[in-house]
Amino acid sequence: MTFPALVKNSVETIEWTPEGVVMIDQTRLPREVVYVTCRGYVEVADAIRTMIIRGAPAIGVAAAMGVAVGVLQSRDLEAEMPIICETLAKTRPTAVNLFWAIDRMRRLYESLRGEPLDAIRERLVREAQQIKLEDIAINQAIGANGAPLVPDGKTVLTHCNAGALATAGFGTALGVIRAAVQAGKKIDVFADETRPFLQGARLTAWELQQDGIETTLITDNMAGHFLKSGRIGCVIVGADRIAANGDVANKIGTYGVAVLAKENNVPFYVAAPISTLDLALASGDQIPIEERASAEVTHVQGVHVAPEGIQVANPAFDVTPNRYVTAIVTERGVARAPYQESLPGLAGKALD
Amino acid sequence: MTFPALVKNSVETIEWTPEGVVMIDQTRLPREVVYVTCRGYVEVADAIRTMIIRGAPAIGVAAAMGVAVGVLQSRDLEAEMPIICETLAKTRPTAVNLFWAIDRMRRLYESLRGEPLDAIRERLVREAQQIKLEDIAINQAIGANGAPLVPDGKTVLTHCNAGALATAGFGTALGVIRAAVQAGKKIDVFADETRPFLQGARLTAWELQQDGIETTLITDNMAGHFLKSGRIGCVIVGADRIAANGDVANKIGTYGVAVLAKENNVPFYVAAPISTLDLALASGDQIPIEERASAEVTHVQGVHVAPEGIQVANPAFDVTPNRYVTAIVTERGVARAPYQESLPGLAGKALD
Repeated sequence: MTFPALVKNSVETIEWTPEGVVMIDQTRLPREVVYVTCRGYVEVADAIRTMIIRGAPAIGVAAAMGVAVGVLQSRDLEAEMPIICETLAKTRPTAVNLFWAIDRMRRLYESLRGEPLDAIRERLVREAQQIKLEDIAINQAIGANGAPLVPDGKTVLTHCNAGALATAGFGTALGVIRAAVQAGKKIDVFADETRPFLQGARLTAWELQQDGIETTLITDNMAGHFLKSGRIGCVIVGADRIAANGDVANKIGTYGVAVLAKENNVPFYVAAPISTLDLALASGDQIPIEERASAEVTHVQGVHVAPEGIQVANPAFDVTPNRYVTAIVTERGVARAPYQESLPGLAGKALD
Repeated sequence: MTFPALVKNSVETIEWTPEGVVMIDQTRLPREVVYVTCRGYVEVADAIRTMIIRGAPAIGVAAAMGVAVGVLQSRDLEAEMPIICETLAKTRPTAVNLFWAIDRMRRLYESLRGEPLDAIRERLVREAQQIKLEDIAINQAIGANGAPLVPDGKTVLTHCNAGALATAGFGTALGVIRAAVQAGKKIDVFADETRPFLQGARLTAWELQQDGIETTLITDNMAGHFLKSGRIGCVIVGADRIAANGDVANKIGTYGVAVLAKENNVPFYVAAPISTLDLALASGDQIPIEERASAEVTHVQGVHVAPEGIQVANPAFDVTPNRYVTAIVTERGVARAPYQESLPGLAGKALD
């Protein structure tokens, strides 16, 4: 069976094609623009695990497409569907969008039980495509909701990459920046390089450069210096999981930036889709934090930068307590403290 | 004229030898242990500028030896002494120890005017050696004064390298850690990698590994996460210049660590010799901050990690306001707020 080519658009992060799920290889940007084709769900899982694709919304889309690929190729869905879902769910523990997307695919599958196999396959493939299209629309809505918050004539600081590459397109944090620029605001961007994986240096700087948005690259430890300097008008970051009380798990280093922003009276905004909310968790303490391989710290793009045998810690995320978060920008509106009230309100609100 | 070999000891950071001023090349550690011999004062200046030698106390010693080399080779001291001093002073703007050491050499030279040339040369060479020996003794005194402050059974967080490699030997911040370990305290160390130059990953991790002190390497943006976790008992860093009010200029990122320490009620200690005090400056706002080449940020050990043509900011230092500094540990004792009173008191105190 070949892959149906249902939708074709210009967004390059991830695409459903007749050959398989095609992703831009984010481990090789910006030096090489290379696309990887995943022809089975195990390959999609590997791509998520090895960060060929990363960013909470993007791995949600990838997981949905992974389920669809698995379903297309399965001869015994009843037996294999749980294995497909589990394989994809075990790739990365922190971003909740992954589990959200898999659950959505699983629930649809369960609602279709008893239908002909081809009909089930077609519906699940269409659903994965739909999740991708919705994600782009959601990001544009986040941008529209967030743009008014961005101070004109100042610099926006961002950490990691919450851009087109972290989503199906447009971006969450970078979507707000793009929308502010489109609205005519005169802003520029400071991008933290975001060690160890260098998403800021490699992905955010590259994305914004392509868009012609003035961008200055800094190392992570310079953020405090520039927040103190007065030139930063606001910080905008994405999120991997947001607890019911508004605590935010995001790329390691986000907590430090949030504390330094508050200390210098700079607003700290989180831009994320409603699918990033995990209202089942009372606080961020319950969010599992992924520990990644030590080689990410001891090596930079394959070059060894530390002594042999040194011990390493490599938590990929941290949790920013809600008291440092000025507002959370979603596609359904802007939530502010007390988040215990505002977040469930937005989650329950119908999308326009 | 050959170089007199006046002193020989086991410290490897910098040494006066018959062949010239020998330094371990800190740009190539830990992958290669290579020594560089500077045969003239211009070579010493280049070694300071290119960070073959770095660390405020170490570049003070290097500058003194640079003056001594220049004096040894000069045929017209009256004309050349100002040029020698100016060449060495123009290498790096932030660390005050550089200017302190050059001034000490210049003042001695002025006191010797009229003496025979050979006598002047011998005295200046001896003075440079003396500055090195004093620095080691000073670091041991800083260690003895600081060790009681280190909480037993916890982790010490440090930023950059304020170790044997940043001094003539033993270290300032790492001197305190070494003295605490020697006093029997059960501590381990978390070392920030310290982008862009990676002094933590390349130098601190290597130094402490040689000493058998348990060390965990983290990226700079992980410091907040671990300060919040409760495992860090205190932060200890060095300093490049301390204003009269206790504001501290140190390696970029120090300010962020200090704010995060205070936010989590973790003591933040600065360990530095009295020669780091610049009591002529009322506050840290007046300390000049060196801006270094963008390639340090866009490249890691020669590997390009950012898109071509991206704009970069690269301030090498930041200023930590005195309100974040729990105490300043010097060879003459421990200063606490109000620093406007405690620092001049220590500066005026005779060394035991």
